[in-house]
Amino acid sequence: MENINYFEKLFYPKTIAFIGATNKRTWHLKGILERGFTGEIFLVSKSSDELFGKKCYKDISEIPDGIDHAIIGVNRNNLVEIVKECIRKKFSTIHIFSAGTGEFDEKGLEIEDELYNILNISSTRAIGPNCMGVYSTGGRFSYSHYFKAEPVGNVAFVSQSGDLTDRTVESLNELGVNFSIAASIGNSISLNISDFIEYFNSDDKTDIIGCYFEGFSRYLKFQGRRLLEVLKKNKKPLIMLRSGVTEQGKRSVTSHTGSLTTSRQIWKAVYTQTNLIPVRSLEELIETIQAFYYCKDILPKVNGVILITWSGGTATVATDLISEIGVDVPRIQDPAMSKMKQMIRIGSTLNPLDLPWVSGSETYNKIIKIAADEPYIGGIFLETFAPSDEWGMGDDYLPRLLELKNYCVNLGKPFFISLPYGGNVVNRDEFKNKILRMGIPIFPSFDRAARAFLNLYIYQKKMKQRN
Amino acid sequence: MENINYFEKLFYPKTIAFIGATNKRTWHLKGILERGFTGEIFLVSKSSDELFGKKCYKDISEIPDGIDHAIIGVNRNNLVEIVKECIRKKFSTIHIFSAGTGEFDEKGLEIEDELYNILNISSTRAIGPNCMGVYSTGGRFSYSHYFKAEPVGNVAFVSQSGDLTDRTVESLNELGVNFSIAASIGNSISLNISDFIEYFNSDDKTDIIGCYFEGFSRYLKFQGRRLLEVLKKNKKPLIMLRSGVTEQGKRSVTSHTGSLTTSRQIWKAVYTQTNLIPVRSLEELIETIQAFYYCKDILPKVNGVILITWSGGTATVATDLISEIGVDVPRIQDPAMSKMKQMIRIGSTLNPLDLPWVSGSETYNKIIKIAADEPYIGGIFLETFAPSDEWGMGDDYLPRLLELKNYCVNLGKPFFISLPYGGNVVNRDEFKNKILRMGIPIFPSFDRAARAFLNLYIYQKKMKQRN
Repeated sequence: MENINYFEKLFYPKTIAFIGATNKRTWHLKGILERGFTGEIFLVSKSSDELFGKKCYKDISEIPDGIDHAIIGVNRNNLVEIVKECIRKKFSTIHIFSAGTGEFDEKGLEIEDELYNILNISSTRAIGPNCMGVYSTGGRFSYSHYFKAEPVGNVAFVSQSGDLTDRTVESLNELGVNFSIAASIGNSISLNISDFIEYFNSDDKTDIIGCYFEGFSRYLKFQGRRLLEVLKKNKKPLIMLRSGVTEQGKRSVTSHTGSLTTSRQIWKAVYTQTNLIPVRSLEELIETIQAFYYCKDILPKVNGVILITWSGGTATVATDLISEIGVDVPRIQDPAMSKMKQMIRIGSTLNPLDLPWVSGSETYNKIIKIAADEPYIGGIFLETFAPSDEWGMGDDYLPRLLELKNYCVNLGKPFFISLPYGGNVVNRDEFKNKILRMGIPIFPSFDRAARAFLNLYIYQKKMKQRN
Repeated sequence: MENINYFEKLFYPKTIAFIGATNKRTWHLKGILERGFTGEIFLVSKSSDELFGKKCYKDISEIPDGIDHAIIGVNRNNLVEIVKECIRKKFSTIHIFSAGTGEFDEKGLEIEDELYNILNISSTRAIGPNCMGVYSTGGRFSYSHYFKAEPVGNVAFVSQSGDLTDRTVESLNELGVNFSIAASIGNSISLNISDFIEYFNSDDKTDIIGCYFEGFSRYLKFQGRRLLEVLKKNKKPLIMLRSGVTEQGKRSVTSHTGSLTTSRQIWKAVYTQTNLIPVRSLEELIETIQAFYYCKDILPKVNGVILITWSGGTATVATDLISEIGVDVPRIQDPAMSKMKQMIRIGSTLNPLDLPWVSGSETYNKIIKIAADEPYIGGIFLETFAPSDEWGMGDDYLPRLLELKNYCVNLGKPFFISLPYGGNVVNRDEFKNKILRMGIPIFPSFDRAARAFLNLYIYQKKMKQRN
């Protein structure tokens, strides 16, 4: 892997330079200055002598050669000169934060052409232009100080959108998921998605890969073939959100990163031949990564779930939606069904398990375990709100949920919780965090849980076919 | 309309009885005792002499005849006797809260058969069995004390699921939507969905009707024909969530309310001939009602929207999703596009409008107004988070959004805000409430906004075809 050394410099630099530091984009600086980065940092600023108590150099010429990783946030008119200087000074990797390039207008295209030409023959590798940069828990720095500083996790992420990276990382952090490394790489005229996936596959810390892909830079011919090769070699689950699928989406891609979109035909081939799990929305991307994070060692072997609820109506609506997604909600067979039914006075044990008056009781757990044992059940979804005092089931409830989760995990079946938003929801966040700490993934509805479950099941089938 | 007097008693009773009151289901009692109900309330309880400082009668025989509305929450074994007594005492309407009836088992079926037979020849009308009951802002009582007590709004709702009613009313209350009247009617062996829709259509307070429907009771033949007649006469937007659409969903319906589901064919005919707007999920039901609540007088005339964002990635993903939903995201044409583009240095003005650095500025509003003016644009969607101090746009932001909203409303084009969940979201609730108070509906993503928008557009087209 020719790029491996570059990636070590990119994610675990010993020296970082920030060229174009100002007192305006402080969130960017804070992510580097306030996370315990142990190497040296050099700030270059035309406007400030000092930032966050750190000396600023007036010009790039004043800082050392051979910097591992430099962030460039200058006006596009100065961009080519600065990048040339970085190459001259033998910087290993640069992050071209600046935008207004190929995605914007004719002048931006000219700038990007020149950047490509000078980088292509250099020994410097770049991410960008038009991107947010790097997040590395092990390297102790991040382009955003909102991202969790520690611990070092096992999810790696690469994306052609900065904000989508923000939302993915922040939402997953909130769901208890920890990252190894991530990068927002924008127009990708130097290092591109194939390089990152290749590196993630070789990275010991990383078990799960997430990706947002718009298309290839127009400079990179034959990249489809290289991506397919990389994907074929990849041994880890790779969850990919791809846009530019519709005609209107393609236009949006052009104005976002100036990438060339690819045809559906090619992607169908990719899906069948590789570990890639395609997803369709940001929510599905986030929630599928979450599902792999908590359940990668208990992938469902059967495409059938039980829905546990205290409400026949919402469960019935969910049953329709889930069936249409392609996940089975099988009827619980006798003798299990009748055995369960004897334990309730109202509700249903057919599936959905509609258990309005026993929620959180010992009976509740007994009933659910009977259904979970059935061989045509591959996963268990339980819907709940954060319990309020009025429910009268405060202290026992969480231990009972944990017991259920452990029971299902021992059966090799994922246990998901659906915790809806909206309405008179008190303590949702507090309850959510307790559930997550018990190792249970959380979804806002049954149908969203079903999409993530199906992705786990599809991956399991792929693994099985390959072995 | 033969039932109109019953409905007046049901929603605006002067006397209420609660038969089977206990100190356990206090939420039910609280909704009646603590909302300023001005009529007389009679509690009948075997277990308590007094509840909430109110005297309890030991037996139904001790309370007056001719009660307008009685709630029955007794064990199913006593149900037939109690209902017979209510009929003897000439109660106008009863709400059979008790479950374990036709939806549950053979014995429950027998009970329900008998209830049907005695009610059918009586002059008492019932809702239920197996349901939560009535919510009436004007009548100043509610089966749930979580529902907003006032003001009297213009949305009416009828549902065969109690929990789904809870979640719909509570979520819409949180979205600033006020109800006139609502009812959870369960197995519907007496008054059924057609009766309610007929009444809602005649009710001056109600402008918008929402409905959750599983199917007809097996006792009621030819109800499909009556529903179609009622729907044809209905002059108001009627948003309907229907379940039992898939085979697995049908099974779930049977165990929930014991209803007979109907075929897709029949429903297609209903959709084309009536004001009915079908929706597929609880979220779409809630958000479409919200859209009608805020925008019923500015229905979109063109099926095309602009997406305004600070992030090309999420907008690109949204463009794909929205296109597939069936809402157009048209490219902004010149000269408008170029005029807008001159005002930014990075981003895009093609549509999505990707405006990363001008958000909340005067320029922002200028750009958006140019796009909103275009004739092929029927609606304006703007995505934002609650602004944090770091954004540096605190005080101006809300007035600018209000200015935009007013501008769009004057053009006759709905203005929606997408306010995502997840990530480092601070002050979401506070910000959300401020937006809602400005009369702007809120959605958690662009694609969810698009589904509601499409429903407004479909309704507008129906209205146009009819006139």
